[in-house]
Amino acid sequence: MAKIARRDQDYSQWYVDIVTRAEMADYAPVKGCMVIRPWGYAIWERMQRALDDMFKATGHQNAYFPLLIPQSFLQKEAEHVEGFAPECAVVTRGGGKELEEPLVIRPTSETIIWAMYKKWIQSWRDLPLLYNQWANVVRWEMRTRLFLRTTEFLWQEGHTAHATAGEAVEEAERMLGVYKRFVEDWMAMPVLTGKKTDAEKFAGAVTTYSVEALMQDNRALQAGTSHYLGQNFARAFDVQFQNRAGELEYVYATSWGVSSRLVGALVMSHSDDAGLVLPPKLAPLEVVIVPILKADADNSAILTAAARLAEPLQDHVRVKVDDRDNVSPGWKFNEWELKGVPIRIEIGPKDLEKGQVVVVRRDTREKTPVPQGEVPVHVADLLPEMQQALYDRAKERLEAGCRPADTYDDFKKILEEQGGFVYAPWCGNAECEARVQEETKATIRCIPDEVEAAGACMICGNGPAQRVPFAKAY
Amino acid sequence: MAKIARRDQDYSQWYVDIVTRAEMADYAPVKGCMVIRPWGYAIWERMQRALDDMFKATGHQNAYFPLLIPQSFLQKEAEHVEGFAPECAVVTRGGGKELEEPLVIRPTSETIIWAMYKKWIQSWRDLPLLYNQWANVVRWEMRTRLFLRTTEFLWQEGHTAHATAGEAVEEAERMLGVYKRFVEDWMAMPVLTGKKTDAEKFAGAVTTYSVEALMQDNRALQAGTSHYLGQNFARAFDVQFQNRAGELEYVYATSWGVSSRLVGALVMSHSDDAGLVLPPKLAPLEVVIVPILKADADNSAILTAAARLAEPLQDHVRVKVDDRDNVSPGWKFNEWELKGVPIRIEIGPKDLEKGQVVVVRRDTREKTPVPQGEVPVHVADLLPEMQQALYDRAKERLEAGCRPADTYDDFKKILEEQGGFVYAPWCGNAECEARVQEETKATIRCIPDEVEAAGACMICGNGPAQRVPFAKAY
Repeated sequence: MAKIARRDQDYSQWYVDIVTRAEMADYAPVKGCMVIRPWGYAIWERMQRALDDMFKATGHQNAYFPLLIPQSFLQKEAEHVEGFAPECAVVTRGGGKELEEPLVIRPTSETIIWAMYKKWIQSWRDLPLLYNQWANVVRWEMRTRLFLRTTEFLWQEGHTAHATAGEAVEEAERMLGVYKRFVEDWMAMPVLTGKKTDAEKFAGAVTTYSVEALMQDNRALQAGTSHYLGQNFARAFDVQFQNRAGELEYVYATSWGVSSRLVGALVMSHSDDAGLVLPPKLAPLEVVIVPILKADADNSAILTAAARLAEPLQDHVRVKVDDRDNVSPGWKFNEWELKGVPIRIEIGPKDLEKGQVVVVRRDTREKTPVPQGEVPVHVADLLPEMQQALYDRAKERLEAGCRPADTYDDFKKILEEQGGFVYAPWCGNAECEARVQEETKATIRCIPDEVEAAGACMICGNGPAQRVPFAKAY
Repeated sequence: MAKIARRDQDYSQWYVDIVTRAEMADYAPVKGCMVIRPWGYAIWERMQRALDDMFKATGHQNAYFPLLIPQSFLQKEAEHVEGFAPECAVVTRGGGKELEEPLVIRPTSETIIWAMYKKWIQSWRDLPLLYNQWANVVRWEMRTRLFLRTTEFLWQEGHTAHATAGEAVEEAERMLGVYKRFVEDWMAMPVLTGKKTDAEKFAGAVTTYSVEALMQDNRALQAGTSHYLGQNFARAFDVQFQNRAGELEYVYATSWGVSSRLVGALVMSHSDDAGLVLPPKLAPLEVVIVPILKADADNSAILTAAARLAEPLQDHVRVKVDDRDNVSPGWKFNEWELKGVPIRIEIGPKDLEKGQVVVVRRDTREKTPVPQGEVPVHVADLLPEMQQALYDRAKERLEAGCRPADTYDDFKKILEEQGGFVYAPWCGNAECEARVQEETKATIRCIPDEVEAAGACMICGNGPAQRVPFAKAY
C-alpha cells in the first residue's frame, strides 16, 4: 500500500487520504456529492444510534417530512429565503411535464414543517411538539470536501413548537447540552459552547447556539447548532394557538441539527500518520484479532486459538478474527491501523507456546503481552481507558489552542503562526467583526456564557469590549 | 371523536380514516407526498430495526449513495430507462444556475451504484459486495394513497455484486426468504412467494421474485421484491472483473427492496372498525395502563397503583401509564384502540379493592380480570399469543382467499364476487396475460415454485397450461 500524506506536510491531503484509503467515502459522479462507504457509514450509524437514544431520553419523537418543498414556502420567511435560496437544487420537471410551481429539495425543513404544524396546533394542549427527523438535505456547494462540506449530506433536524418563549429557549439550550455531551462523551472531542453573533446565526433564528471543536491543524469546526427561532416561522406560516388565558398567540420554535460532517471532524480530531484513530465507543469494530499465519504450514492451532480468544469477547465487544489467508499479517496490521480499529490482538506460534497474546492499542501503538486468560478483562479495561485518553489529549490540544490577544497586530500574528481560538477584545459591533473576517478569514466562533471584560475593541478601540474566541474554521 | 368509516361499507375511506386519525400520516402540501407522523414513523422504525438486523445477520453492510443521478446514467440500461424515466423528478437548476446536465432524483439506485462499483471491483477478490442502503426515493405518481403509493417514499435497497450467476441467484432467493420471514414473523402477514412474469418484472431484471400478501378487501399487495439482474447493469456500466481463471467477465448482480408501503399493508391486514390493530412485535407501545380517575376526587391511590404496575413491565415491554387528567377514561380507551396498542390495562377503585386489574386485548377486545401480582406473567404470555393469533387469522383469510377457476367465465365471476387470489390456467403467453389485465384489471401476482399443471389456458385454450394466482392488487 502506498503511504498516506503526512499531517505536518499536507494536512488537507492527509485528511482525504485517510477518508478514501480507509474506504470511508468516495467521490460521486455528481459534482460535490459523495458516496458513504460501509466503514464510514458504520461510524455514522453508531453516531445516529447514540444521538437518537439521547433525543428520545429527552422526550423527542421521530417523524418524516417530505424532501420536496414548494419554492414559495421558502419565500415566506424573509431572512430564511435570503440565506438558503442561492443554495437550492430546483426540480422543474416531474412525471414528464414542466411543473407549475418549481419545487426545491429541502436545504433544511423549517418551512415544510411549519406548514404542517399549522394543521396540527390549535391549543396550548397540543404543545409542545418535540419532533426530530433523520434525513438527507441538499445545499449547492462550490467548494466541497468529503464529509465536511458536500452538496448532499445526511443529518438530523429537530423542530419543536412551544407555548412560551422561555420554554423554547430552554429547549434550544437543552439540545446544545445534548450535543456537547455527545461530542465530548462519544467522539472524545472537547468543545466550546456559546451563542453565535448576529452575522453568523442561522437564517431565520433569533439566537443560534453552537458547539465548536478544534482540529489538529488548529482550525475550528462547528460541530452542531441549536436555534431559538422565536415566533419567526409561526408568523410566516400563521401558526397561532389558544393559550391558557384563551388568547391567540404565535407559537415559539426551535430547531437543531448535526450532520454527517461529524464523521469528518472525528477523522481530523484523533487520527495520525498511520491512518484513522477512532474512539472505541464509535468504532464499528473495537477489537481485531490477527492470527500470525505461515504460508504452506499447518495453521490450525493458531486459528483455533484465535477463534477461542474471540468467543468470550463477542457478547460485550465488537470483535472480528481476520483469518484471511491471501494477505500477510503485516498487510493486515497496516490495514486495521489505517481503518482505526482501537485494539489489535496478535497471536502467533511463539505466543501460543507462552500462552499469551500481544495487545496493540491504536492510539499510542503501544504493545503489551497479555496472558490469554486475561484478555477479556484487559480489553474491558483498555477500551474505556483509550476513550478517556483520546479525550484528554484532545482537551490538552484545545486548551493549548486557546490564546489571548490584546491588539489586532498580536491577533493576526497568533492567528497566522499558531491558529486555534484567539480570544480578542471585541466591542460587539458587526462592522468590526466583518473587517476581521475580510482581512484574516477568522470569524467569531461563539460568544461563551462567561466572557471576560476587556477594555477596548482591538479594531475600533471603543469600549466596553468582551474577549471572544475568533478562529479560522472549516 | 367522530367514528371512522366501516370496513364493509367503504374500505378505502376506512383505511384513510385509520391512517390519519391514528396520526400515522398526513397529506403534504406537495401533491402525492406524505408526512409520516410519529406514530407511523415509530412503526417504520421498528420494521427498519428488525430488517436491518436480518440483513446484517446475512452478511450485508449499509452504505449511502447520492440522491441525485445524472440523467444520462438512466439511459445506459435500455429497459431500465423505459421503466423509470417517465416517473422521474428532474433537477434542472442548482446554486442559481441552469445545470449543464439535468439530474434525476433517484427512483431506484442501480445506475448510480453500478457507476461506483466500476471503481471498486477489479478482481474476484473484491467480490461479493453485499451492500444495502436506507433511503428516500421519488417516483412521480398520479394516483397516490398514504403509505401505499406516494411520490416520495422511504425504503431500503440492497445491491449486491457477485462472481457467478449461481451465487447471485442464490442471493436473490435468500433475500426473498428474508422478506418472507420478516413479513410473516413480524408483520403476522402470511404471503405467497414466486417469480414475476416477464410483463411484471423489474425494469432491467432477468428474474424478479416477490412476496404477495392479501388484504382484508381481498386485494393483493406486493410486499417486497428481489431481483436477479444478471449482467445487465454490469454491461451498462462496463463493470468487469478478473475471474479465478484470469479472464475478464461482467459482474453478476441482484437488487432487493421493501418500502414504507409495508406500514400501509400492516394497517390493511389486521385492523378493524375501531381502528388500527398492531402485531405486538411492531407496536411502538405494547401495553398502555389507564388508571380510572375521577374528577374532583383524590386519585393518588390509583395513580400509585398504576405506576407500580408499570414498574416490573418496563424492562421487557414497551409500556406507558396514561395519567392525563384532561380527558376521560372512555376517551383514552377509544384513542388507544384507534392507535392499535395491543394490551390495555384498566385499573379503577373497585379493581384496587379486589387487588386486580382488567386486561383488554386489542385484537379480540376480550376483557380479563387479572390479579395485580400476575400481570407481568400474564402480559409476557399474552403478547406472543396475540402475535400468533393475528398470524393465524390472516393465514385463514389467505387460505380462504385462494380459489381455483377453470374457465375465464368462472375466473371473472370469482374475481368480481369474491376477489382474492384466483388460481387459473395460463399458457405462459404474454398476450393472454395482457388480455386478462385489460379486461379484469387482475394480474398474475407470481408464479409459485410449485405449480399445478392444468390442461388448457383459460384465454387461448392452448396447452400445456399452469395454474397461477391472478389478483387485483394495490
